Amino acid sequence: MRSCPTILKTELLAESGYFQIEALHLQFSNGQQRVYERLRGTGYRSVMLVALPDPEHVLLVREYAVGVESQVLGLPKGGAEPHETYLQAAQRELIEEVGLRADRLTELGELTLAPGHLCHSCQVILAEQLSPSYLPGDEPEPLDLIRLPLSQIGDLVGRGELHEARAIAALFMALSALARRN
Amino acid sequence: MRSCPTILKTELLAESGYFQIEALHLQFSNGQQRVYERLRGTGYRSVMLVALPDPEHVLLVREYAVGVESQVLGLPKGGAEPHETYLQAAQRELIEEVGLRADRLTELGELTLAPGHLCHSCQVILAEQLSPSYLPGDEPEPLDLIRLPLSQIGDLVGRGELHEARAIAALFMALSALARRN
Repeated sequence: MRSCPTILKTELLAESGYFQIEALHLQFSNGQQRVYERLRGTGYRSVMLVALPDPEHVLLVREYAVGVESQVLGLPKGGAEPHETYLQAAQRELIEEVGLRADRLTELGELTLAPGHLCHSCQVILAEQLSPSYLPGDEPEPLDLIRLPLSQIGDLVGRGELHEARAIAALFMALSALARRN
Repeated sequence: MRSCPTILKTELLAESGYFQIEALHLQFSNGQQRVYERLRGTGYRSVMLVALPDPEHVLLVREYAVGVESQVLGLPKGGAEPHETYLQAAQRELIEEVGLRADRLTELGELTLAPGHLCHSCQVILAEQLSPSYLPGDEPEPLDLIRLPLSQIGDLVGRGELHEARAIAALFMALSALARRN
């Protein structure tokens, strides 16, 4: 595999409460130099949940997304508290957002998004054997829950009704893991 | 579907050459108020390509991603120039990044990523009937090209070697579209 470029200099260009923008001055092994901007990771660790109420269905949530100023279909997700493992965070978010707890949680792996510009990643967790539970969450309004047959994911994506890349990728990971299990 | 919250105020918090950070003050229909930060879209339109050299294989690229400071496996992608349609941009990026042109290009739809924080989206284009072509690109070094059997995408994701959410989602869109075609 090709070697990574040398980071000659890192500058903090701008920051807000939530984001930090950095410029990295890079030199590639062939001598080419570039300055790339990225959003710095804040150490925020996040989880995304593929929750199966039974082996043929998955739970989607619809919530307001300010980036696109519309209601967006996706998966339950949230941040891990500093003291939590990813599985503990997944269990808490599932209870808070969906009102269910899982007796079986499986780590499916990590997803990056736009790794050329963002440092963020999220852990994908498969949640099964669900039963009702309750914890108050921090959502401004309750999420709409949709129970979707796993066999209809492709059609939903094809119609443009599910377009969130992380959610689609997490569902693909879950479908692949379930196929390997059978 | 639930109504979207009212945007009470939008503030520009910070900006760099590439990014703008905004705060949106929102009031939800139940009266709850929140302030959310987002990265503002710059009007940048991007395409991601699922290029099939034959019906059983797809072309992946490996390139340096500064957000995660490592070489990352993904799909050919790039920005559309203001005068270009998405299909024109896809053809140009395919020639520049991969050295191939496509006689058949199909728009598969749009992907968002982290729409709670980002305004960005990308158009996914299926490229088929490929033949050699050449245009100089703007990459600092040539990309590594990998010819992968479509049947191995799930395993590659399962092993954590392909973790870029947009690329996995785009591949899922392509697999779904190909399954519908057959």
